Amino acid sequence: MLDEAGIVLTAAERDAIEVADFGLGRLEQVGLQLVVYVNTERVCAKELVLFPGQTCPEHRHPPVDGGPGKEETFRCRLGSVQLHVEGEAEIVLGPGEQFTIAPDTLHWFQAGAEGAVVSEFSTQSRDELDVFTDPRIVR
Amino acid sequence: MLDEAGIVLTAAERDAIEVADFGLGRLEQVGLQLVVYVNTERVCAKELVLFPGQTCPEHRHPPVDGGPGKEETFRCRLGSVQLHVEGEAEIVLGPGEQFTIAPDTLHWFQAGAEGAVVSEFSTQSRDELDVFTDPRIVR
Repeated sequence: MLDEAGIVLTAAERDAIEVADFGLGRLEQVGLQLVVYVNTERVCAKELVLFPGQTCPEHRHPPVDGGPGKEETFRCRLGSVQLHVEGEAEIVLGPGEQFTIAPDTLHWFQAGAEGAVVSEFSTQSRDELDVFTDPRIVR
Repeated sequence: MLDEAGIVLTAAERDAIEVADFGLGRLEQVGLQLVVYVNTERVCAKELVLFPGQTCPEHRHPPVDGGPGKEETFRCRLGSVQLHVEGEAEIVLGPGEQFTIAPDTLHWFQAGAEGAVVSEFSTQSRDELDVFTDPRIVR
């Protein structure tokens, strides 16, 4: 899917693709595949790959160290993704479309029938601080 | 070149491509073409397009509002770019390769013979604060 989206990875990046099943053991339904390009104290950029219909479950990025939580922009590169954001009508992103999610705002997303490749541009990622609605989830 | 790199833009984004000649009037030699995806108080993401041999002149991002200056990661998507960073040996980035430049560090870059498409992931962009070595430059 990354190849199809025209995204070139180094060999080391291909070997380091992160697969997250959120501890639920149902990866094809609930999960994410991620390539983390950079994650400093200030800036993070990733590619997310979602299988057809695969869902990233509802969560938020709470305030951290006295500052605001993680701010994220999702930009669809390939396929489509339905984005559900607290206080917003349902958002559907196709290639070239994007949406910015304010810190500490509940959100979840699901790929359409062809799956999706989505770029994420954000402040620092500290996955261990994410708050998921489903208490069974372990990031 | 963006099409060749597999990068999809909306019609509005195509109409808003920024062309910067840095006030020198020699765009094909010294300049940049930019698509700004997002630029909030915390995060910025862009695509940079450089013609064959085109150069972005030496500059740095000084401290701002009591905090550190802009931090940038450049990731090459297509073609190649030579990156010259204060205190570093010359860096050549091909597709899938990237480099992070610390705040307030002098740098300039030049596309190779095929030009380049480069993604930039950074903290907020405030171009008017950039400090260029060449005093004739107006951003």
